[in-house]
Amino acid sequence: EGVVTKNELAYIAGFLDGDGCIMLQLVYRHDYLLGYQIRASIVFYQSQRYYQFLVWLKSKLIDGYIRNRNDGMAEYTIVGTKPVSRVIKLLKPYLKLKQKQAKVALEVLNLMPGSGRKMEPKTLFKLAKETDKFADLNYSKKRTNTSRVVELFLKSRHLL
Amino acid sequence: EGVVTKNELAYIAGFLDGDGCIMLQLVYRHDYLLGYQIRASIVFYQSQRYYQFLVWLKSKLIDGYIRNRNDGMAEYTIVGTKPVSRVIKLLKPYLKLKQKQAKVALEVLNLMPGSGRKMEPKTLFKLAKETDKFADLNYSKKRTNTSRVVELFLKSRHLL
Repeated sequence: EGVVTKNELAYIAGFLDGDGCIMLQLVYRHDYLLGYQIRASIVFYQSQRYYQFLVWLKSKLIDGYIRNRNDGMAEYTIVGTKPVSRVIKLLKPYLKLKQKQAKVALEVLNLMPGSGRKMEPKTLFKLAKETDKFADLNYSKKRTNTSRVVELFLKSRHLL
Repeated sequence: EGVVTKNELAYIAGFLDGDGCIMLQLVYRHDYLLGYQIRASIVFYQSQRYYQFLVWLKSKLIDGYIRNRNDGMAEYTIVGTKPVSRVIKLLKPYLKLKQKQAKVALEVLNLMPGSGRKMEPKTLFKLAKETDKFADLNYSKKRTNTSRVVELFLKSRHLL
């Protein structure tokens, strides 16, 4: 339990390259002084038929949770700086298509303040710009929360 | 060149489970006495952006060919009894979602007459029925060439 072999990591990396997603998102939080949070996540999708497969995946990667969506799909999501960093580090040696995403995500996550420490407005803005670059790697098109949005928010509050 | 490690096979199996396809199809051939052929194939899809990734895959699995489609996708296809059997055998120890497809495909392919040997109508009909079962595993819905179609063809020619 919780033991994962190199072959299993290579398999999971292949599966993530084929059908999974590494994400960095700017999420608005009405109760945040800085307005926006950087959320890192790794998502694996699968038909609900293969729910047990996601349970197996989670038994190997430990963090995260599985949920059934309304459209017949199930998804296994790992969220948060620490768990996402850990899992990316595990898979990075084996990734091919998402090698660059893994690198940029780790760079951003390494610059996140540790738990209990405050995020500075300047740091948030800098990381928001990195998040834009990351979105380009993922060919994300429908982003509304960009570094520009964060910049305007921070300036409107005289934080930047 | 042509050397593939266990980790690479595990990776490719994960990628196939996530985004690839093992197929057994009944294909009509107007110049075939028995009317239908059983075609086995393995297909990997990817955006044309990642064409080089498919080139890497082919360098590892050797058989097959890569082509650009009209819709911005590229696909790497391995066709034929011998190459498909060989590649399935390589990946089978690492497959999870398509483990059953791999097993059934190998069973069918093992029953195919060797090159230069004639397919008997009875054998074709039997394998066509296996192909139906295989399609169920893939949740294929739009099949027109089923074992029933093959049966009717063979009977119309007094071959069955």
